[in-house]
Amino acid sequence: MKPNETSPALTYRDSGVDIDRQDRALSMAREAVRSTFTKGVLSDMGSFGGLFDVGAMGMKDPILVASADGVGTKLQVAHRAGRHDTVGRDLVNHCVNDILVQGARPLFFLDYVGTGTLEPETISAVIAGCASACRDNGCALLGGETAEMPGFYQGGEYDLVGFIVGAVEREHVLTGERIQVGDRVLALPSAGLHTNGYSLARKVLFDRLGLGVADRFPGLDQSVADVLLKEHRSYLSPLSPWLARSELHALVHITGGGLLDNTPRVLPKGLCVRFDGTSWQVPHWFQVLVAEGGVPARDAYRTFNMGVGLLVIVAADAEEEFRSGLAEAGEAVWEIGRVEAGADPVVLQGVDGI
Amino acid sequence: MKPNETSPALTYRDSGVDIDRQDRALSMAREAVRSTFTKGVLSDMGSFGGLFDVGAMGMKDPILVASADGVGTKLQVAHRAGRHDTVGRDLVNHCVNDILVQGARPLFFLDYVGTGTLEPETISAVIAGCASACRDNGCALLGGETAEMPGFYQGGEYDLVGFIVGAVEREHVLTGERIQVGDRVLALPSAGLHTNGYSLARKVLFDRLGLGVADRFPGLDQSVADVLLKEHRSYLSPLSPWLARSELHALVHITGGGLLDNTPRVLPKGLCVRFDGTSWQVPHWFQVLVAEGGVPARDAYRTFNMGVGLLVIVAADAEEEFRSGLAEAGEAVWEIGRVEAGADPVVLQGVDGI
Repeated sequence: MKPNETSPALTYRDSGVDIDRQDRALSMAREAVRSTFTKGVLSDMGSFGGLFDVGAMGMKDPILVASADGVGTKLQVAHRAGRHDTVGRDLVNHCVNDILVQGARPLFFLDYVGTGTLEPETISAVIAGCASACRDNGCALLGGETAEMPGFYQGGEYDLVGFIVGAVEREHVLTGERIQVGDRVLALPSAGLHTNGYSLARKVLFDRLGLGVADRFPGLDQSVADVLLKEHRSYLSPLSPWLARSELHALVHITGGGLLDNTPRVLPKGLCVRFDGTSWQVPHWFQVLVAEGGVPARDAYRTFNMGVGLLVIVAADAEEEFRSGLAEAGEAVWEIGRVEAGADPVVLQGVDGI
Repeated sequence: MKPNETSPALTYRDSGVDIDRQDRALSMAREAVRSTFTKGVLSDMGSFGGLFDVGAMGMKDPILVASADGVGTKLQVAHRAGRHDTVGRDLVNHCVNDILVQGARPLFFLDYVGTGTLEPETISAVIAGCASACRDNGCALLGGETAEMPGFYQGGEYDLVGFIVGAVEREHVLTGERIQVGDRVLALPSAGLHTNGYSLARKVLFDRLGLGVADRFPGLDQSVADVLLKEHRSYLSPLSPWLARSELHALVHITGGGLLDNTPRVLPKGLCVRFDGTSWQVPHWFQVLVAEGGVPARDAYRTFNMGVGLLVIVAADAEEEFRSGLAEAGEAVWEIGRVEAGADPVVLQGVDGI
């Protein structure tokens, strides 16, 4: 087991993995991570697994709700723009919404960053972004993994993945089974593309229109990067007061698949949501992407959120209370459709080509 | 918002993302995933978040333990060898060990697969691998995410990330705080490289020795792929009967950082493990990697597991019982060191160059 004397010595660092650099990135983010620790957190950074005391939440009969997600190719926009402090926020907010729609509030979050060559400043900015959104959502950043994989990711590019666990009292789990004919479907606006449709958006803006991230977005006084990196919103705060209400029948997070593919995920068989496609103004950026890309309407509403971030399906007689309450909380809420009987789970009326 | 008539139509599929292909991959893996569902699982596939009833476990005062991990560049070996059914097992077993060392048994697991062009057969093999190891460990595969990110990953390459949540009774959490002078350190063997040191191993075997995955591993009657893809073991089954024993003071999973960097993670300040480097035969494959790579000893023991997969730190007067019990369970257990007072947390004696 002696090193072969004819070969020059090869260390782990020579192979492209630098453990000390990883430690440096983590120690830069340490304070941000610790600032997210809620009363449930029992472990400090560096444990093999993060420890969380679900009993400290004081719940009666908690059901855990877990989800995994990535940021997708929005990361490539961040990379081109050299902005690494927002994608972590996108990811955490996305994950928070994914469990919120089942009625859960977040307990803890873990991140994974895979990269070719680990740049401590970049990675610590990414983790600090996760931490800041975790703090905003009352969610502990309980752990994570940073993997340096030479030759796997190009240059300083990285993939970013998030895992969230939340909890909901058993009696308040949202499954959609309470949805019935006549229910009102309210919509809350998205802030931008959130985290979906970036492969298509990049194709339209970068390839077809030949724009760069610093160029003005067509028809706006904002750069392409400003528009594309608008943050994925968390809907936890406005929805929080309503989660235990029996008139709340379902929530739908409009992610990959858009209105057309996400709505059916909560609908009982035989029910349909009839959307009024004229009930809202599709944000300018989607209009540009659809027009310049020549994107067929069915593709557009299956790829982009088209301005709708979350659906709130409520009993008809509670609509007024939900609308005014959400409006008071500052939400630009509107009625986007109603629940009907029907074999097709989604009807989108008033949109050409659908 | 009409498509621009001068531009040819661009669909999401044109941009490289094919939602139908994703659905096909998932439906191929559906039965394997469902076969992992334990009594805690309340949701089926396709929910925004997976629901898990921790109360169904019948625990008194459960503490959750969570961990995130990847497979690292072992994935590139799998890719070169065209074998995609083992990396999911590596990942699940790695995650199981990471929470086992805090005393926890797995509740559920979520996977993330990011890829450039989604090949349904490949991805379903990967997920089926995760599912089979989940089943072996009594762990539900509760959810996951498959992301098609064109231009991000090269060709059919993919990254694979896992997230696990387990639970342990509060009184049985393993923190290492019970470790004291005189404790015995037992070792359980690894099965291969597990999931660490692949960047260095690839450099030695592929770059320096010019071997391919199908070539014979030097001095063995197995191919390079056979040796490098040996599965990361789960230590849950042999350790399971011992987790509630107060004489069990700590477990250490030997992952990235090897014996030298992982052991200090559980040791109270002022204590040290003196390893006897002559107490075991370092497996042939590590000897080849070290010799042919000219890898300095300190690097080798910080990069590779060198044949040690897990450390079991027990009270001196319980050593005999643990050793014979583990041996009866089929483990090739041996005493690798003892706990002493000392400022340096790790002393590795009997190894040249350390």
